Amino acid sequence: MGLETQGGTRFCGRCGAPLALRVPAGDDRERHVCTACGAVHYRNPKIVVGCIAHWRGRVLLCRRAIEPRRGLWTVPAGFLEHGESAEAGAARETLEEAGARVGIDALHGIWSLPAIGQVYLLFRGRMRDARVAAGAESLEAGLFAEEAVPWQAMAFPVVTQALRAWFEDRRRGRYRLHRGLVEATRWS
Amino acid sequence: MGLETQGGTRFCGRCGAPLALRVPAGDDRERHVCTACGAVHYRNPKIVVGCIAHWRGRVLLCRRAIEPRRGLWTVPAGFLEHGESAEAGAARETLEEAGARVGIDALHGIWSLPAIGQVYLLFRGRMRDARVAAGAESLEAGLFAEEAVPWQAMAFPVVTQALRAWFEDRRRGRYRLHRGLVEATRWS
Ligand SMILES: [Zn+2]
Ligand SMILES: [Zn+2]
Repeated sequence: MGLETQGGTRFCGRCGAPLALRVPAGDDRERHVCTACGAVHYRNPKIVVGCIAHWRGRVLLCRRAIEPRRGLWTVPAGFLEHGESAEAGAARETLEEAGARVGIDALHGIWSLPAIGQVYLLFRGRMRDARVAAGAESLEAGLFAEEAVPWQAMAFPVVTQALRAWFEDRRRGRYRLHRGLVEATRWS
Repeated sequence: MGLETQGGTRFCGRCGAPLALRVPAGDDRERHVCTACGAVHYRNPKIVVGCIAHWRGRVLLCRRAIEPRRGLWTVPAGFLEHGESAEAGAARETLEEAGARVGIDALHGIWSLPAIGQVYLLFRGRMRDARVAAGAESLEAGLFAEEAVPWQAMAFPVVTQALRAWFEDRRRGRYRLHRGLVEATRWS
């Protein structure tokens, strides 16, 4: 991922002229509107896709090699690309970050993080074999039983929540769809 | 909704300089990279949130007053805003387009439309009363039993699919989570 651009938009992507904050006709809130060509630039939330991939009861985790939260653990996840389905994105991230091939089984849950404009879509996936290899954005990757998960060194509260729900579902023998709202204070 | 800008990005939002297509270091595909400040501009898929809202077995539909598909029918749905949860967005669209207040019950399904860079999140909602009023983007709004739905005049195949699934779930007395991939040819 390169330099972050969202939030710092000051010029029009269509014509290069400066933007101004205005309420467009028929709208109900301020938008970045081009002072030259009139294009309205919406600030769209981003989709984070990821996978809780398992192999014989153990889940696949990666330790982050990049900021934010370098050195802490998470499940393979990242921004959905234009042109791919949510499921394909989750499988791609799992391959890129942890070197693991998965079949996507179901949606595990959806979490909204409105304060940072993100929606997490985390899927459940079966690993095709036990092979794991840290990708360029990971320091290491491995398979963890519930008691071995580094719960005190997890990168993102939303992932911790999702993982705990997965182990609970597994104990009960019934996987549910989870849904949640992560407030700003819980995130930061 | 104003002038569409996605896809036609040619200038840097940070500094206004022209963009060029390049593969950034450590990346595996071409991105719009600023020729002056080096900012990488990712093309992010958008989230469409909507609601299958019902009142005593009838579902809430709107007839579109805007392009695309002006004059055709759909459920209340639109782009998620930065700063709102997926559920709040679905409820907002239902109020804006159909004048109806809903409580969100569950996620009905998730559909990816990779060819146009969209992910649909459609929720199930209970209307608080039977009040309905066409919003600015709707020609009319109303409640429809299954046999009264204008199946031949629906705006979007993904919504038709989702609605049929909802009526089927209802007949079976068991609501499931639906998941789908809408190919370019099915969409256009
Ligand atoms: Zn402009
Ligand atoms: Zn620039």
